[in-house]
Amino acid sequence: MRPEWVDYNGHLRDAFYMLIFSLATDAFMDRIGLDDAGRASRGRSLFTLEAHINYLHEIKEGTAVRVEASVLAFDAKRVHLYMEMFADEGTEPIAASEQMLLHVDTTHGAKSAAFDADIAGRIEAMFRDAPKEARYAGRVIGLPSGPRAASASASASSGLSPA
Amino acid sequence: MRPEWVDYNGHLRDAFYMLIFSLATDAFMDRIGLDDAGRASRGRSLFTLEAHINYLHEIKEGTAVRVEASVLAFDAKRVHLYMEMFADEGTEPIAASEQMLLHVDTTHGAKSAAFDADIAGRIEAMFRDAPKEARYAGRVIGLPSGPRAASASASASSGLSPA
Repeated sequence: MRPEWVDYNGHLRDAFYMLIFSLATDAFMDRIGLDDAGRASRGRSLFTLEAHINYLHEIKEGTAVRVEASVLAFDAKRVHLYMEMFADEGTEPIAASEQMLLHVDTTHGAKSAAFDADIAGRIEAMFRDAPKEARYAGRVIGLPSGPRAASASASASSGLSPA
Repeated sequence: MRPEWVDYNGHLRDAFYMLIFSLATDAFMDRIGLDDAGRASRGRSLFTLEAHINYLHEIKEGTAVRVEASVLAFDAKRVHLYMEMFADEGTEPIAASEQMLLHVDTTHGAKSAAFDADIAGRIEAMFRDAPKEARYAGRVIGLPSGPRAASASASASSGLSPA
């Protein structure tokens, strides 16, 4: 976590949680064989199609974080990755993100392509090892009763527990 | 868009789309009266609870972008904001994001609080002006048939149209 990532509240700005998850996705790519060398020699890469993030706890400047990643699903060209971020030695996540990643052939522009067999094998191994629970996956963003006026119920609950 | 936001493909890294949306959320806060001065004098702020982002087109370094924001829903303490990002003079979005924002009292830690009446009025005005269509709102991330093996159908479609 870097000083310039902090917002006016002294906390990590929302987008920089996403940057940490993005760097964790790079680590996932390294793990399955799509590191710098693998991307260059194969002419392949992963593109993020879609991402969802839940902000669960604030963190202050200087906090060390770690990310745990698992594969929730995959097909010939796509991986559904699930990640939870933890602060220091914490056991409760401070943020969670799920992402849909597309495998692309980058040799002529960028065109979706099937995973090479060895890469698919490593993804499948992670899928088999994935924990059964992905608490913040599959969510839809919305207010419980849909659009309504400000005079409506103020019983809004929140998952936010500021640190 | 800044040079250090570019990834190894020469394109804007996924997390920096989110930073642009985060800066657009700051502009939304300014618009409803929660700018720097408003936050300080009222002891209030908005926290992001949850965000969803769709990556529709890649953009290269130096591209100018603009964001259009609208209010899809709100209640006494929360706003459901929808944003689309456009490149240069483009009319098709290059990314879309919906976010759930919580209004908090920051005078003693951070505790959810009802909007002040004038702020709620400005949010309601934006809600009344919102376009009827929010093409990328309400989405769930997942593969069509759920978890499956790599040997399954390779008929994956994708919204990505690399530039």
